[in-house]
Amino acid sequence: MRKGLSQLSKMSLLHLKTGSVCPPTTPGLLRCYNMKYCPYAQRTLLVLHAKNIKHEVVNINLMEKPEWFFEKNPLAKVPTLELDGKLMYESLVTCDYLDEVYPEPPLYPRDPWQKGRERCLIELFGKVISSMYKTYRAYAKEDKEEMAETFNEVVNGLAPFEAELKIRGTKFFGGNTPGMLDYILWPFGERFPVVEISARKMLPQTELPLLKSWMQNMKEDRAVKAVYIPPEIHKMYLEDSLSGKPGYDKNYSALLASKV
Amino acid sequence: MRKGLSQLSKMSLLHLKTGSVCPPTTPGLLRCYNMKYCPYAQRTLLVLHAKNIKHEVVNINLMEKPEWFFEKNPLAKVPTLELDGKLMYESLVTCDYLDEVYPEPPLYPRDPWQKGRERCLIELFGKVISSMYKTYRAYAKEDKEEMAETFNEVVNGLAPFEAELKIRGTKFFGGNTPGMLDYILWPFGERFPVVEISARKMLPQTELPLLKSWMQNMKEDRAVKAVYIPPEIHKMYLEDSLSGKPGYDKNYSALLASKV
Repeated sequence: MRKGLSQLSKMSLLHLKTGSVCPPTTPGLLRCYNMKYCPYAQRTLLVLHAKNIKHEVVNINLMEKPEWFFEKNPLAKVPTLELDGKLMYESLVTCDYLDEVYPEPPLYPRDPWQKGRERCLIELFGKVISSMYKTYRAYAKEDKEEMAETFNEVVNGLAPFEAELKIRGTKFFGGNTPGMLDYILWPFGERFPVVEISARKMLPQTELPLLKSWMQNMKEDRAVKAVYIPPEIHKMYLEDSLSGKPGYDKNYSALLASKV
Repeated sequence: MRKGLSQLSKMSLLHLKTGSVCPPTTPGLLRCYNMKYCPYAQRTLLVLHAKNIKHEVVNINLMEKPEWFFEKNPLAKVPTLELDGKLMYESLVTCDYLDEVYPEPPLYPRDPWQKGRERCLIELFGKVISSMYKTYRAYAKEDKEEMAETFNEVVNGLAPFEAELKIRGTKFFGGNTPGMLDYILWPFGERFPVVEISARKMLPQTELPLLKSWMQNMKEDRAVKAVYIPPEIHKMYLEDSLSGKPGYDKNYSALLASKV
């Protein structure tokens, strides 16, 4: 096990690919199939850490998927959860399951209408995600006009979330501690600096002051710290991805250190 | 109120559009914003009927959306639920909410992993939905090759659902009575005959015998009967939609009767 890796999580570091053998499972131990840079799988990891759920992580190469992975999930996507031969997939489905079965700390509001409202906001955030990917693609094409346009789309998409934090008047969407909405949004919050680098513009402090504080506050959370990847590494991974060669197993940290 | 309309549901038949005024709400009465031919909104109506929840329906013209509708739902989509000024949207979010707050009959399995599995199958069904829309578009272009290809995609996408019915060995996915998976899938099941008409091919009895029985069984369900639209009317609506002029308020039943 890598030094400093959370005691909660046993992780196979290399991304398994075509021709590999699925590592044997351990009875009673929850397994999360993951890709190190996948924001959707990161949601599930965040919830696993927030709830102190013992688990292991198996990383999957999404460009050359192992044959056996299609038997785990017909969509062959991450996150996929496995427990004693039972399988479940999709970030929201897995996070909701974990919240139901491991109730502490509860991540959704108790009131069903309020819970539904959180899920509406998660759906609404889909617009922000699609604008973020547009910004990345504009960056890859070095299309400055498109970069500016799509960046504005991100900022506009974030406005209802800034408004929501204002209405709630709390540090996190979940209150004094992060809730489900915080953890579902965070993997993209962690990548906001990459959007800023891609668009060569900063998210405006005047328009989004509460979201900017939220980003700082989230970085202090224990679960976030456990799976945090810094912007510089996200950027290197993104550039490799955009060129069609995602560096699942590349040692970006070492590359980064060598540049300093 | 139209004769024969379910006593559970008070429905404004015309689809309200730009320039309209939002009809006043009734305290304590659940309202569902709907579009008569929207399969996603139909999911919510099915759950409302399955659980005998008193509600009213307000139909929305999705091509010329009322200005006030954006205040109800920033995505301005149906279904949207409103109750005493509180708002919720998205078919899965609203259906899950209704199941939580109106527990009888329960539509999900009690076991959280089984519940998660139902939600995985709902996600997996997304592939079938996207293939269905491809078939419609091939039909609009009269591209016979594409019609055949996309129809095969639908058939292949349905294979895991046929297999699931076989494993379960029950009349419905939910057992002896329809459950959430049945109601979430049904609006598309109701439109399978339109796919058959579009592709000029029948879903193969030999490959999908259990799903074909499922379709017959579903048509006998009380909730399904309450919101059922026959294939001929779906087809007329689809053709108008594909030509860019969806006939939200067109009297397709009368047109159909005049043809007989």
